[in-house]
Amino acid sequence: MKQTESTQQVQKMESLQKRRKKPRGKPKATLGQQALELHRRVRGKIEVRSKVSARSPHEISIAYTPGVAEVCLEIAADRQKAYEYTSKWNNVAIVTDGTRTLGLGSLGPEAALPVMEGKAVLYKQFGNVDAFPICLQTTNADEIVRTVKNIAPVFGGINIEDIETPKVLEIVDRLTEELDIPVFHDDQHGTAVVTLAALLNALRLTKRKPEDTSVLVAGAGSAGYGIVKILYAIGIRDMVVIDSHGVISKARAPETMNRYKYELALITNHKEGVTTLADAVRGRDVFIGVSGVKKLLTAEMVRSMSKDPIIFPLTNPDPEIHPKEAFDAGAKVIATGSYKFENRANNALVFPFTMRAILDNRIRKISQQLLVNVACALADLIPKDRLSPFNIVPDVTDSRIQEVVNKAVRSATATTG
Amino acid sequence: MKQTESTQQVQKMESLQKRRKKPRGKPKATLGQQALELHRRVRGKIEVRSKVSARSPHEISIAYTPGVAEVCLEIAADRQKAYEYTSKWNNVAIVTDGTRTLGLGSLGPEAALPVMEGKAVLYKQFGNVDAFPICLQTTNADEIVRTVKNIAPVFGGINIEDIETPKVLEIVDRLTEELDIPVFHDDQHGTAVVTLAALLNALRLTKRKPEDTSVLVAGAGSAGYGIVKILYAIGIRDMVVIDSHGVISKARAPETMNRYKYELALITNHKEGVTTLADAVRGRDVFIGVSGVKKLLTAEMVRSMSKDPIIFPLTNPDPEIHPKEAFDAGAKVIATGSYKFENRANNALVFPFTMRAILDNRIRKISQQLLVNVACALADLIPKDRLSPFNIVPDVTDSRIQEVVNKAVRSATATTG
Repeated sequence: MKQTESTQQVQKMESLQKRRKKPRGKPKATLGQQALELHRRVRGKIEVRSKVSARSPHEISIAYTPGVAEVCLEIAADRQKAYEYTSKWNNVAIVTDGTRTLGLGSLGPEAALPVMEGKAVLYKQFGNVDAFPICLQTTNADEIVRTVKNIAPVFGGINIEDIETPKVLEIVDRLTEELDIPVFHDDQHGTAVVTLAALLNALRLTKRKPEDTSVLVAGAGSAGYGIVKILYAIGIRDMVVIDSHGVISKARAPETMNRYKYELALITNHKEGVTTLADAVRGRDVFIGVSGVKKLLTAEMVRSMSKDPIIFPLTNPDPEIHPKEAFDAGAKVIATGSYKFENRANNALVFPFTMRAILDNRIRKISQQLLVNVACALADLIPKDRLSPFNIVPDVTDSRIQEVVNKAVRSATATTG
Repeated sequence: MKQTESTQQVQKMESLQKRRKKPRGKPKATLGQQALELHRRVRGKIEVRSKVSARSPHEISIAYTPGVAEVCLEIAADRQKAYEYTSKWNNVAIVTDGTRTLGLGSLGPEAALPVMEGKAVLYKQFGNVDAFPICLQTTNADEIVRTVKNIAPVFGGINIEDIETPKVLEIVDRLTEELDIPVFHDDQHGTAVVTLAALLNALRLTKRKPEDTSVLVAGAGSAGYGIVKILYAIGIRDMVVIDSHGVISKARAPETMNRYKYELALITNHKEGVTTLADAVRGRDVFIGVSGVKKLLTAEMVRSMSKDPIIFPLTNPDPEIHPKEAFDAGAKVIATGSYKFENRANNALVFPFTMRAILDNRIRKISQQLLVNVACALADLIPKDRLSPFNIVPDVTDSRIQEVVNKAVRSATATTG
């Protein structure tokens, strides 16, 4: 009967997909064509708006000079007052160097801008955060750190985005250390949170406990790194990570490693002789794909996993295995990172709400505890009696998200601070 | 009779001032107090707004991922397309290092933010420009140049603001040379344009020709430098510039000079033995004050000038001489930079409209010809038969400004390009 339920759901999913491909009026336009049309029409998805009027000399005199001098002097005496008198409290810089735009590689800073503007749109829509894109002309880590530090006074937080690894992990570490505002790395932190949220409910559905669950993570970039660390934090100990060079281990050739992969090697497992994905995934409970490789996982591999396997092929836009193929091969719960399928374990569920709560609580550093708390809160939004293989994460439009994320972030502050 | 007209106007001006100091509801609040109240209430005068909706999965799929990939690829193939598909065409960074905020000195980047936000408000209000404040943590010229170059991909133009001289002049020169987007320096370019606009009509009123007019400029910072250069460009040759060390000349002690003051020395005049303002201003037709020094000019000095002198004490918020005192001492035409008085020769008349035209015409470098054209266009907005000592520049709310500035900028392109 459950198989039937799943089949119905797959059919529903496919019909939804078809409907999405036929928006009204433009029956044959692909998403890409529609995106081009939208972007050409609006010429920028964001704008800087005034919250005050400056039409009369009097209005100009208090919003600008000479009245504003009094405000400047107050802040000069205590720069924390910038949080009271300016937009700093709500400004976030979305910083990229364009080296890893979407899954498309190094396209340059101008080509990254439409993505960063899209991110700003979601920040505003779901978190009421004023996010402004900063696409950098440089790809040098020192320059990026220096530039972000130089522009930091205007911002209440930094969102690092789509920068190549391992460079980006070093940049995030250094900025976290050196800045007095929070540095959120969506590819690392956002992906980790949404993955954990989905996994917690998938474990409930399949009656597994974290400490007894075996996980394979395919991909050891920002997302893989963030996911392994958060899974370790909630008590998962049986983890294998595989990248394009094979399973991560301390014994691997140094040229295939970096300090972040060594860090993963210390908290994950490695069996002698296991080098291929087919070998590594055999008998595992969970597959998490953040590899960037389309069709990496085959139906045969899914069949080789333990009973009722959990399959999260999160790579965008094309997952490591098509959900339908995974179902047919016996997957019990599937989540992707894409808006094309059900169970959207997409970062959009995390970054706007989490940044809102971080800004409101003036969090300075993003701790693992904070990320875990947010993931648990998102997972708990699905009531136990409504959990199903197709309902493990809330929808991004769910109006309850912000409140539970706020609580989660506040309780992390209480824990760590 | 003219004296009477002037006296009436002064009385009108004073009554206007008094009225401004008594806004409805809060009879005793100063402009500074009102500014504090406004800033506390709005907590940031600007916000980043979405121009598209992202409520449904479909909307997210075309504003963000996966649809946006198509837009990224188009721009990666031709980065000029960022002007068609993103907000770059309309984004301006208002860059400061907080070393010369208003006339208040070096208050730090956070304290500069309320001014830069105010500037962004005026940019939007009058020019529909999306200006975003960038207040820098560094005051080092090389670092500033590097940071602005690094963040340039997102912007269609740069507005440099309130950075100490001579450092800022070097920064503007280097950025103009090295960037492929226009660099507008409001303290230099904006002040020069509005001053020339006001002066052109003051010269008409007093029946003087530029080539026969003698000018004293008090102050050799960004504003003084820009003013002398634009006055030279329109044919004024009898100019003396004075700063805190006395009259600018090549013969002066090197420690009181810099390369920009040497540049001024080459196009201005210096008489042997003249060192004080009182000596330098005697017999002059025009006084232009951009000194930052309140009450620098005395009534006696005004009386020592030629008949019907033109007095522009432009320093904000407190001019080099109070307009009433200048009138009483025989000044024929007076303009200040303040919204407290009539004849507001304030940069707000220039930067929003000029940047709009510069962006729309994709001007890459700001030429002297462009600045002169804009100044002439602003001056010409006052019809000859309505010129009067109290009506030499249009009001910033004048709906005709944008069109004439557009024409002025386009004709400069035609001239130079």
